[in-house]
Amino acid sequence: MDLTDRPDLAYDVFAKACPSRGTLEHVTGRWGALTLGALAEGSLRFNELRRRVEGVSEKMLSQTLHALERDGLVHREAQPTNPPRVDYELTPLGHEVAGRLLTLIHFLEGRMDEVLGARERYDTARGGR
Amino acid sequence: MDLTDRPDLAYDVFAKACPSRGTLEHVTGRWGALTLGALAEGSLRFNELRRRVEGVSEKMLSQTLHALERDGLVHREAQPTNPPRVDYELTPLGHEVAGRLLTLIHFLEGRMDEVLGARERYDTARGGR
Repeated sequence: MDLTDRPDLAYDVFAKACPSRGTLEHVTGRWGALTLGALAEGSLRFNELRRRVEGVSEKMLSQTLHALERDGLVHREAQPTNPPRVDYELTPLGHEVAGRLLTLIHFLEGRMDEVLGARERYDTARGGR
Repeated sequence: MDLTDRPDLAYDVFAKACPSRGTLEHVTGRWGALTLGALAEGSLRFNELRRRVEGVSEKMLSQTLHALERDGLVHREAQPTNPPRVDYELTPLGHEVAGRLLTLIHFLEGRMDEVLGARERYDTARGGR
């Protein structure tokens, strides 16, 4: 199939082999979403990011940043200072992604009372756990 | 701090212990996002869902559905038929979440050319891999 004639079919996250699935996972994975959300507020250094994304290990944050940088969502800027200093910031595409992600995050934060109520009913119906 | 006075501070996904972080992970995790996206089109039986979310194992889909049901995003309806038949559908809250998620998914699918271009530049700059 010539995908250039059907741009609507070019990428599909539901298809196992589609590269968009990997990017969706980088963006929405456990740490990817929080990293993009944190950088939406402005550029941060590695250790600032680590404090903002509570609970992330140095190794996981480093892997997360590499994946987001490779996908063109995060820009890494090494400052020529002594000691060297590295800033991370969103690219224009990263800002567009982070905006949509934050819409989802803020929506969920605003509806957590409903979610916790549902969890309580679910657990009660199953004899608690 | 009395959180009832500051509803804006009640839930915060950046805080390690906040229950909203778990829900964000259920919604955006590898399989959660695709399951919600698939159910946004209408109710589906387990095996229909499994075919739609290409690559998911029976066990992972079952775990994913339980987490989403417990969070009040998916409703499980056992039909009193013989053989028994179980339908899964989004709750009203699930529909609102899935809508925001699909906005993000469709945006990413539409910008994958940019993402793949960035990956190529990244890999070339590092001597290929």
